[in-house]
Amino acid sequence: MTERYLEDFEAGQTFRSGCIRIEADSIKRFAAEFDPQPFHLDERAAIKSMFGSLAASGWHTAALTMRLLVEGDFNPAGGIVGAGFDELRWPRPVRPGDELRVESEVLEVRASKSRPDQGVIKARTTTLNQNNEAVQVSVGNLIVPRRPASLGELHG
Amino acid sequence: MTERYLEDFEAGQTFRSGCIRIEADSIKRFAAEFDPQPFHLDERAAIKSMFGSLAASGWHTAALTMRLLVEGDFNPAGGIVGAGFDELRWPRPVRPGDELRVESEVLEVRASKSRPDQGVIKARTTTLNQNNEAVQVSVGNLIVPRRPASLGELHG
Repeated sequence: MTERYLEDFEAGQTFRSGCIRIEADSIKRFAAEFDPQPFHLDERAAIKSMFGSLAASGWHTAALTMRLLVEGDFNPAGGIVGAGFDELRWPRPVRPGDELRVESEVLEVRASKSRPDQGVIKARTTTLNQNNEAVQVSVGNLIVPRRPASLGELHG
Repeated sequence: MTERYLEDFEAGQTFRSGCIRIEADSIKRFAAEFDPQPFHLDERAAIKSMFGSLAASGWHTAALTMRLLVEGDFNPAGGIVGAGFDELRWPRPVRPGDELRVESEVLEVRASKSRPDQGVIKARTTTLNQNNEAVQVSVGNLIVPRRPASLGELHG
């Protein structure tokens, strides 16, 4: 898979990922380490909570989204390095047995004024379940290197 | 520790957490599962990356921040349930051996128009390392139940 430099991105491009299935065991394991609240740890306790049944921590969804992005076809040179997010929402809980995948759309590409060797792309990433319902929406800013001059001469 | 209802929160309140130390092993373990990129997995590969040396995934920092919040003195009734974030940034990498803690400040408290039994509090949460440098800043919206009428009569 070809690495993409800043010059290879443009607004409107979309990228997709493979699929990952999330099970009750991994929901509870993540929660025990990072988000130990009853509705992420125990089916019976979850019934009485705002979620109504066992739900994954939003941070688990976010972490799985990252994995799908890293393994997807986005592939910026230098890796996926986030400068930060303008928005991060979980419109719907993730439940045991859900199958998640990711779609990203490039919203903006801009060169850095202070760092001539890199730039930032703003992208909206939506994590979808098996019913094509959004379970996470983020708008993030990724740091992407510009194509080195020597590579520019060789490839383009 | 007393559970807090919407009525117990007001802008300007601050909350703090305990401390958690992050080691190279856990940085690599988290990365292997959720963010398998060289600069989170391998000291030598990280030297050549944007990070210069091994750095934790931002999602690892976010997940540890959640744990510190859950174990801290915030304690909203019904648990810490995020509706989403208006901002999430990692101004500085987290390195092996860093000791993280969290400070939160309530920015805004508002009742829900559509759900009379709950409201939303907006809070800025800053994750700090042992040098009091911010490694993560977020502004998030938490769903918090209002005090039930029966409890209001009993407790004030």
